Amino acid sequence: MPKDVITPRTKDYSQWYLDIVRHADLADYAEVVRGCIVFKPTGYAIWEAMQRELDRRIKETGHQNAYFPLLVPMSFLKKEAEHVEGFSMEVAEVTRAGNEDLAEPYVIRPTSETIIGHFFAQWVHSWRDLPLLINQWANVMRWELRPRPFLRTSEFLWQEGHTVHATDAEAEEETLKILHEVYKDFVEKELAIPVIAGQKTDKEKFAGAERTYTIEAMMQDGKALQSGTSHNLGQNFSKAFGIKYSDKTNVEQFGWTTSWGVSTRLIGALIMAHSDDDGLVLPPRIAPVQVVVVPIYKNEAEKPAVLEATERIVAGLKGKVRLHVDSRDYLSPGFRYNEWEIKGIPLRVEIGPKDVEKGTVAVARRDMPGRAGKEFVPQEGLADHLVARLAEIQQVLYDRALAYRERLTVEVSTYDELAKAIETGFAKAYWAGSTEQEKQIQEKLKATIRCIPFDQPATSGKCVLTGVETSQQVIFARSY
Amino acid sequence: MPKDVITPRTKDYSQWYLDIVRHADLADYAEVVRGCIVFKPTGYAIWEAMQRELDRRIKETGHQNAYFPLLVPMSFLKKEAEHVEGFSMEVAEVTRAGNEDLAEPYVIRPTSETIIGHFFAQWVHSWRDLPLLINQWANVMRWELRPRPFLRTSEFLWQEGHTVHATDAEAEEETLKILHEVYKDFVEKELAIPVIAGQKTDKEKFAGAERTYTIEAMMQDGKALQSGTSHNLGQNFSKAFGIKYSDKTNVEQFGWTTSWGVSTRLIGALIMAHSDDDGLVLPPRIAPVQVVVVPIYKNEAEKPAVLEATERIVAGLKGKVRLHVDSRDYLSPGFRYNEWEIKGIPLRVEIGPKDVEKGTVAVARRDMPGRAGKEFVPQEGLADHLVARLAEIQQVLYDRALAYRERLTVEVSTYDELAKAIETGFAKAYWAGSTEQEKQIQEKLKATIRCIPFDQPATSGKCVLTGVETSQQVIFARSY
Repeated sequence: MPKDVITPRTKDYSQWYLDIVRHADLADYAEVVRGCIVFKPTGYAIWEAMQRELDRRIKETGHQNAYFPLLVPMSFLKKEAEHVEGFSMEVAEVTRAGNEDLAEPYVIRPTSETIIGHFFAQWVHSWRDLPLLINQWANVMRWELRPRPFLRTSEFLWQEGHTVHATDAEAEEETLKILHEVYKDFVEKELAIPVIAGQKTDKEKFAGAERTYTIEAMMQDGKALQSGTSHNLGQNFSKAFGIKYSDKTNVEQFGWTTSWGVSTRLIGALIMAHSDDDGLVLPPRIAPVQVVVVPIYKNEAEKPAVLEATERIVAGLKGKVRLHVDSRDYLSPGFRYNEWEIKGIPLRVEIGPKDVEKGTVAVARRDMPGRAGKEFVPQEGLADHLVARLAEIQQVLYDRALAYRERLTVEVSTYDELAKAIETGFAKAYWAGSTEQEKQIQEKLKATIRCIPFDQPATSGKCVLTGVETSQQVIFARSY
Repeated sequence: MPKDVITPRTKDYSQWYLDIVRHADLADYAEVVRGCIVFKPTGYAIWEAMQRELDRRIKETGHQNAYFPLLVPMSFLKKEAEHVEGFSMEVAEVTRAGNEDLAEPYVIRPTSETIIGHFFAQWVHSWRDLPLLINQWANVMRWELRPRPFLRTSEFLWQEGHTVHATDAEAEEETLKILHEVYKDFVEKELAIPVIAGQKTDKEKFAGAERTYTIEAMMQDGKALQSGTSHNLGQNFSKAFGIKYSDKTNVEQFGWTTSWGVSTRLIGALIMAHSDDDGLVLPPRIAPVQVVVVPIYKNEAEKPAVLEATERIVAGLKGKVRLHVDSRDYLSPGFRYNEWEIKGIPLRVEIGPKDVEKGTVAVARRDMPGRAGKEFVPQEGLADHLVARLAEIQQVLYDRALAYRERLTVEVSTYDELAKAIETGFAKAYWAGSTEQEKQIQEKLKATIRCIPFDQPATSGKCVLTGVETSQQVIFARSY
């Protein structure tokens, strides 16, 4: 696999992304099923690693997993007015089943607030049943005519949390806890992607929510990628589906609900946050394979000693790092190195005849290609060395992404500055405009308010559009 | 929750089953979605435990997980003649999406041989690409008019393995390896359910398979439950979808494929293998909660000492057993005991004021209700004691189920004996009949040949129907 299979980022970022997906063997276009992809083993293993870490955090914050039907009666979608408006154009409809036309069509869930709301209404009776804290791992479908692997596909995989609380304050606390303790913590610590946490404007919030909170990440082309959202749904869905409880004084009250989700689009975020022109770059904590071991020999005479050393070294690494041994001696070392570079494995350990003699191995870092990232390390104590290097790489990737974001984030005070800044990255701007004015900016600049960050400046300033003095700063960016 | 909410097994086994599902809080009927259920947290946690153990075995035998589209073009189903006949009557069809009628409808996968075959044809080129060993965790849909929670539902969850091999022999080896090393090992070791492994007759094999292997378990009412199947598909699907590879001599060959699956119906098997009139009984290895700790006090004066002891005891158990502490002091101890009995928790640890004084706890076994299953144990060394008890319970449940099956399995040599035996359990019979004769027996006796066991007698005998001498013995039973 020659390196030049990957289009350089500076030439065509969009094509570079598709090349990475293809050559790192992450996904296949499923042209026979509109807008869908196949998650190939290498890509799916990343999702499994994400699931493991997310699921742990979701359970540690007191949630339980459950599973609700894939199909949602069409009428359910219509029970919450904003919700149906948001989703009706993109659903797939089941109109026949068991060789008969159905009286009422079902939709394949585009999200499950409605069907879950229906059941929650039967599960919740008393204040003692609250909070009800449920999560679901599932596939969902939103019909997509212009698909992009991981980022925009008709079917995608996600987790969706759904909770019911006795008070608005508790629902708000839950919504924010998920955003900070689950999503932000996960994306920053495991994926090494720094995010900006904040609130969505009314224009950008979830269809049916009172307030939507988000974490926004910057990709290498300066665009934003919404990486996780958490919605305070107020009493909108509990009123639509009758989720009621008797409070401590025996008075019937509507519950306060939340929902929150992250999806396989995080794989897209991972690719675009760290990878380079040589291929995928995976942060060690999420990499399904952290270390690839490549034994090297030119002939049968060199083979036994190298394989013996490899076996011994691998035995010492097992259980300490997630590793793969590439013993395909019908392929040249260079070809194999190249493949693991393209696939983003954080560390490569090479074992050749000279290493056997000297009691060393060569260790190559994926985050520092070329000579700078290569070192010769004693076989003795190798596991500890690799574990330390992996931790270092994780930190390097995070720091690099953070520095990059800071470099491409500009504080703007005029419309022209805004227009220029969003060409290359994020624009921080004071904002006091209306939803209508927000739409105008989107039409003209193809940029949206990504969020109103929780982290606000101490001083006020003039709205970038209207000039009105305001204390509210927002982030504008183009986005995926 | 009074105990008499559960119908006794002897009165109505079918109603008993539904009562267990409901009162152990495992699932809800989803009446609004035809034939579907909601997996409630307690039920879903059992599936998660099953997934963890199955996934480990599937990966240890060299398979990788991937994920393929939910939707399958209708035309794909028709490419394998037997396959479409087997599934066409029970599929759900998507005919509209994105607010438009589709030119060709999709079906929601009833199983994925066709869509996966389509992609495998693109992935496999050379003998070096083989074997291709893939597994998928997914939801599937087969329209069901008479649903039964876990056993028969329109949507269910499963894993489906799909592999491609260079030779028939390798495909056969894979098919049998999965049956023995993955399915039989899992069901017997983790679920404590003894199974009979064997081959399906032509009449009973999977639509499109050359040979289907199965593990069959006996439920308490003497009926069989097919607990896992593994199919050698020969070249049927590789010819239908063009899965070809160049062999070592550069000659193009069709691949040999297999598929295999187990589903959430195993939760039904688990219920019907071990539970009793007091509720669910969970084998410790699969139980999401193995030990429930119940602190007991009658008044505020007794409370601090009991809670202090509970905290200390719980700290000593953490990480050694999966445990839950039930500190709902607004419910009576009896009410709480009852709830955990119904939910099948293997061990209950009670801590009251007298236990605090004596440095003991009371330990109650779910598998031996009443006084016989209760013992007083020193707090010192409690974790080791419980771990040993859990292992013992696992063995007891397996032994009990095996003894039960043996008691209800009869070797029959006449049609009348067969007719009588299948009223209460399994019938072992010599069989040399045709598929047509097999169908006649099914019509008359409502029993089918569950399998031709691998374990065959050394001697031959007369076919139970035709009297023809044969060396082949089969198992007849009614089934779920």
